[in-house]
Amino acid sequence: MAATFKERLYRGYAQAMEIVGKPLIDEKSPYQRIQIFDTTLNGRVMTLDGVVQITSRDESAYAEMLTHLPMLEHGKVKSVMIVGGGDLSIAEEALKHRSVKDVVLVDIDGRVVELCKKHFAAVNAKAFKDKRLTVEIADAFEYLSRKECKSRFDLIVGDRPDPIGPGQALFGETFYDRIKRALRPGGIATFQTGVPFYQPSEVTEALAELKRHFPQSGLYLTVVPSYIGGFMALSWAGKGRRLGTPAGIKKAAAAFKRLKLKTDYYTPAIHAAAFALPAWIERLKP
Amino acid sequence: MAATFKERLYRGYAQAMEIVGKPLIDEKSPYQRIQIFDTTLNGRVMTLDGVVQITSRDESAYAEMLTHLPMLEHGKVKSVMIVGGGDLSIAEEALKHRSVKDVVLVDIDGRVVELCKKHFAAVNAKAFKDKRLTVEIADAFEYLSRKECKSRFDLIVGDRPDPIGPGQALFGETFYDRIKRALRPGGIATFQTGVPFYQPSEVTEALAELKRHFPQSGLYLTVVPSYIGGFMALSWAGKGRRLGTPAGIKKAAAAFKRLKLKTDYYTPAIHAAAFALPAWIERLKP
Repeated sequence: MAATFKERLYRGYAQAMEIVGKPLIDEKSPYQRIQIFDTTLNGRVMTLDGVVQITSRDESAYAEMLTHLPMLEHGKVKSVMIVGGGDLSIAEEALKHRSVKDVVLVDIDGRVVELCKKHFAAVNAKAFKDKRLTVEIADAFEYLSRKECKSRFDLIVGDRPDPIGPGQALFGETFYDRIKRALRPGGIATFQTGVPFYQPSEVTEALAELKRHFPQSGLYLTVVPSYIGGFMALSWAGKGRRLGTPAGIKKAAAAFKRLKLKTDYYTPAIHAAAFALPAWIERLKP
Repeated sequence: MAATFKERLYRGYAQAMEIVGKPLIDEKSPYQRIQIFDTTLNGRVMTLDGVVQITSRDESAYAEMLTHLPMLEHGKVKSVMIVGGGDLSIAEEALKHRSVKDVVLVDIDGRVVELCKKHFAAVNAKAFKDKRLTVEIADAFEYLSRKECKSRFDLIVGDRPDPIGPGQALFGETFYDRIKRALRPGGIATFQTGVPFYQPSEVTEALAELKRHFPQSGLYLTVVPSYIGGFMALSWAGKGRRLGTPAGIKKAAAAFKRLKLKTDYYTPAIHAAAFALPAWIERLKP
């Protein structure tokens, strides 16, 4: 039988993907174990410390919903920061917007960026060539406190890992304070907020924190098959702007049409639908 | 380590659930291998021939969307047929509607019904006590051709298995003809139509067949974590009625409020959102 990658993110549940050919990468950076391999059904996959980070087959469901949704509602995003996101899938989507003047991606692990440049070119080749992109190999938590970051960004995307290990700093109170400080008035931040079916408390805690730190905040959903457990929760926080209002949704639909964005997941109908929560997720709200 | 159930529905991808305690049931009926066990994260699970059929933790996402959504839009469903559905989770939801006079559940495997009565009482105890329910242990394909079925049902729910083995007859041309014949004018049928991420051709083929046989038909989505692959496709076919129109959605929302239905997944907002398709699923339409 072919080799198999088994993910054990949760105690009591696992997914297993059949690997095609030899794994492309299996090495340890100073921060984490990095694996890249091709699979029978899920395309090319990168895992960090044994947890799936990106697959070429479903990355659009994640990257498009964290970028196009807030950007189309905002309408004039010029400056974007990406916390993490070393595979550049989010940068690629953000750079599709002509209004964008610069995208700063801050990932702690330069080796992830290098390996993804080589092995996920189908996802990120355009982004790497785009002069509007700056990749900073640094701790995003530290980076956000720099002087030049104050009121700098229209959009900050928190493509953070799960709140375990070094990723923990990207969840605490101080992190949200720094995000808020780095946003321009009218700016928006979006965050990966876990899979509610297997991580219900992450949703509840993140929403409570956002509510404490931002004038506006809320939840929306996407579905990324390789982030097992059905719905993935995304959260948003506004500095003077609310996402998901009927006016915002209508404005985004018009902008989508005008910009002729090509997408694999996002549509104006999916944008509106993303704010509808199943009853059991509605009950997780703090 | 505890025992593990491993599902191999697809070649190249598997899910594994940790079993808690001893498996409750592992036997062969004349039709299939039936297993029932408790798990660490997915509640109580029943599998048939090694494929997950129901888990107590997420059955609502499936059963509620196949019943409440068409029933609330229809508004006056009196007579319901369930094709398969031996765990009675769908019957339980249909019987929550006071307008319903009778529910006929036709499952080929009486042993599944017996075992689910004993081991899924939390899901189906009310349904088993309800005098409006008739359980027929029969081949649903044959049953549909009976004289008394002609123009009898307002709603037929196809809780059919995947199109492999004995379930195949529940997908062909003749099956849809029989469904159409058994529907009353204005009636609706809803069908499990696979997980598009791993079974894209099932969606394309089912929609083409429905279009050929029914004056109205379409697709909508739910998310059932244990049916791995993110979105699950549900399809609908109308005999003089279209689902998912703005008027139908509005009518359903008013009916939901009036009936005070208690749900774990369905909400009026989720109803409207279920018709929004990600771009990649939109492209699977024939």
